[in-house]
Amino acid sequence: MDLKFIQDLINPAQTKIVMLIMDGLGGLPMDPGGKTELEAARTPNLDALAARSALGLSEPVGPGITVESGPGHLGVFGYDPLQYRIGRGVLEAVGIGFDLESTDIAIRGNYCTVDETGAVTDRRAGRIPTDISKVLSKLLGKQIEDVEFFVETVREHRLAIVMRGSGLSPDVTSSDPLKNGYPPLTVRAINSEAEKTARVLNRFIEQSHQIIEAYTPKSNANMLILRGLDRYPNFPPFSELFGLRAAAIAVYPTYRGIASLVGMQVLPVEGDAATDEFSCLEKYWTDFDFFYIHIKETDLAGEDGDFDRKVKIIEDVDKLIPRLIALEPDVIIVSGDHSTPAYMKGHSWHPVPTLIHGKYVRPDNISEFGERACSRGSLGILPAKHIMPIALANAGRIMKWSS
Amino acid sequence: MDLKFIQDLINPAQTKIVMLIMDGLGGLPMDPGGKTELEAARTPNLDALAARSALGLSEPVGPGITVESGPGHLGVFGYDPLQYRIGRGVLEAVGIGFDLESTDIAIRGNYCTVDETGAVTDRRAGRIPTDISKVLSKLLGKQIEDVEFFVETVREHRLAIVMRGSGLSPDVTSSDPLKNGYPPLTVRAINSEAEKTARVLNRFIEQSHQIIEAYTPKSNANMLILRGLDRYPNFPPFSELFGLRAAAIAVYPTYRGIASLVGMQVLPVEGDAATDEFSCLEKYWTDFDFFYIHIKETDLAGEDGDFDRKVKIIEDVDKLIPRLIALEPDVIIVSGDHSTPAYMKGHSWHPVPTLIHGKYVRPDNISEFGERACSRGSLGILPAKHIMPIALANAGRIMKWSS
Repeated sequence: MDLKFIQDLINPAQTKIVMLIMDGLGGLPMDPGGKTELEAARTPNLDALAARSALGLSEPVGPGITVESGPGHLGVFGYDPLQYRIGRGVLEAVGIGFDLESTDIAIRGNYCTVDETGAVTDRRAGRIPTDISKVLSKLLGKQIEDVEFFVETVREHRLAIVMRGSGLSPDVTSSDPLKNGYPPLTVRAINSEAEKTARVLNRFIEQSHQIIEAYTPKSNANMLILRGLDRYPNFPPFSELFGLRAAAIAVYPTYRGIASLVGMQVLPVEGDAATDEFSCLEKYWTDFDFFYIHIKETDLAGEDGDFDRKVKIIEDVDKLIPRLIALEPDVIIVSGDHSTPAYMKGHSWHPVPTLIHGKYVRPDNISEFGERACSRGSLGILPAKHIMPIALANAGRIMKWSS
Repeated sequence: MDLKFIQDLINPAQTKIVMLIMDGLGGLPMDPGGKTELEAARTPNLDALAARSALGLSEPVGPGITVESGPGHLGVFGYDPLQYRIGRGVLEAVGIGFDLESTDIAIRGNYCTVDETGAVTDRRAGRIPTDISKVLSKLLGKQIEDVEFFVETVREHRLAIVMRGSGLSPDVTSSDPLKNGYPPLTVRAINSEAEKTARVLNRFIEQSHQIIEAYTPKSNANMLILRGLDRYPNFPPFSELFGLRAAAIAVYPTYRGIASLVGMQVLPVEGDAATDEFSCLEKYWTDFDFFYIHIKETDLAGEDGDFDRKVKIIEDVDKLIPRLIALEPDVIIVSGDHSTPAYMKGHSWHPVPTLIHGKYVRPDNISEFGERACSRGSLGILPAKHIMPIALANAGRIMKWSS
């Protein structure tokens, strides 16, 4: 069942869907027999909502696969992340709010250290401090032939590099050897249209090498390596696919970027707290049919291994749920883009608690929103990309199908 | 999500995975309202393990499909059995421990009975006794042109036949009409490279016919029919796909053969009991990252319709579980290659109880290992090929994916 199949069945309707994504929502117990973050959190509002919802556990890509935020979000937005791919360079550029043009080439760069033989000895240049990284990046933004280079430090050694000029192509190889002990690779054109890009990039790398080497005070960085070259993807827009006027409410640039990438309108949020996001939702309530709201802090607390903070953030979000319900959306989705158990201090493959509420939902009569509760739910283990079709159906937006 | 996708994400790690396969594990109640073999068995150790595991029911190929051991095992080893196919001839040869060379053609043969018109009247020659079958097979092992024929009785009318010589091809049609009432078919080459194989095979069939007819004392057999011609398959090796040093512990030749076919190292077991297999596991514990242990007797008891014996065998395996846990594997998988309910006296399509244990597993808090318990587990009904990716993730062997 692909997106075209769903698109052909889309039914115009005056209904509203809210998708609340708590980043890295899924968790694990810290001790055998213990509760997960979501289970430990006191969430009377989510529990009451769960009792009138269908529950399940969603998998972003497939069993055992841990994802980055990009593919994780594409999944909940209904796009198969294995089919709709976004180059790492684009994700980095989008993540810092860089306004990519359609012909730009976005690249993920690393400051790195090479030894006197030219072999990479540290792909991260000892995690060079962000402030030094930013000074270097300012020095590197040069023009080569007619190609303009934008070099932006994301954090520490991580760079988003954008090439803008005529006749560019993403069909070139990476310079990143991906392992220490090997020299950076010469960038090569995969086809004849990419020859200019390869030539310019190799000159850019050579020039950058000289600039970084010459820079004093010396840092661990003396070179850069490039990978993940791509153009801004041309995905079928969310609004066209699903017939929805879709808005995104997110304070972090990465998520504003991903939403924008599938064609959602990104709303301005006054402030940067979850409560500000809910105020934004209320303010624009009449203007859109679909709202994506993103809560970042659950993921950050998970990454930090801070179980209690993740619990607290979930409890704070729970307190906002009555404001959401007061708007009387036809369908409410509560889920995450992946799991980030505090126990693992990072993203994980564990399926994500998912709730779909609406007046046509067949409720599971499970009055708890948690991992084990969701594993007993009627949605079972479902690919994240199935969430949107189910939500659309519950919003009366999918017609009956006949072959 | 194919094997290449997983292979590209494989992360080297110093973790150990044990996969315990009880052949034909899944069962059925003998009476309405009764328990299955696994449910009836007293399994305190497996139950305790289940309480700290994720549970589910695995399907070897798909809903309603009953499998032989070959595809059933490929599934739990992570290979899609619909994509990775093994010719029946190869399975028969491998099953009797025949050491196939890469250019050999393996064939499944039947002794059969034909009437005076040449039509097959019994495709199994009245299930000719194994000892007579073996005498006949000795007479048939001949050379034709430069092609050597190895004819081995598997049991009763069932034969494994291997052709060894230059310029052979598996691209020929079968001689087995698959139904009584029709004459054996002439073997035909599907392409020009297979002409020699077809010619030699037709001569072999004709010669064999004369030899079997001439043999006294007369048996029901007077002909043979051939099908399932294939070469030893060239599957991507388990160790390369998953980055594991993999060992197989199995006393039955078929399972040693299938493990060897995916590139596992087959370990020598001193003795033929389950306890000997566990001793082998202990002996080689430090030498490998992945151990497949195979218990055959559960399947045999199921095939015999002996519910109580199957219960007893499961209970005996349960007593060995503490020895497995004492080794402290990072991940333990307990499952089967298919179901063999005593009630049906044969393989069945019923999904197979499956348990995955490890410190990063999100436990289902279900303290019982049984069919109905597993159907409440968070793994849900899962394709058997998904077991390996989940186990690998839990063993820290799959990297985070970004598109």
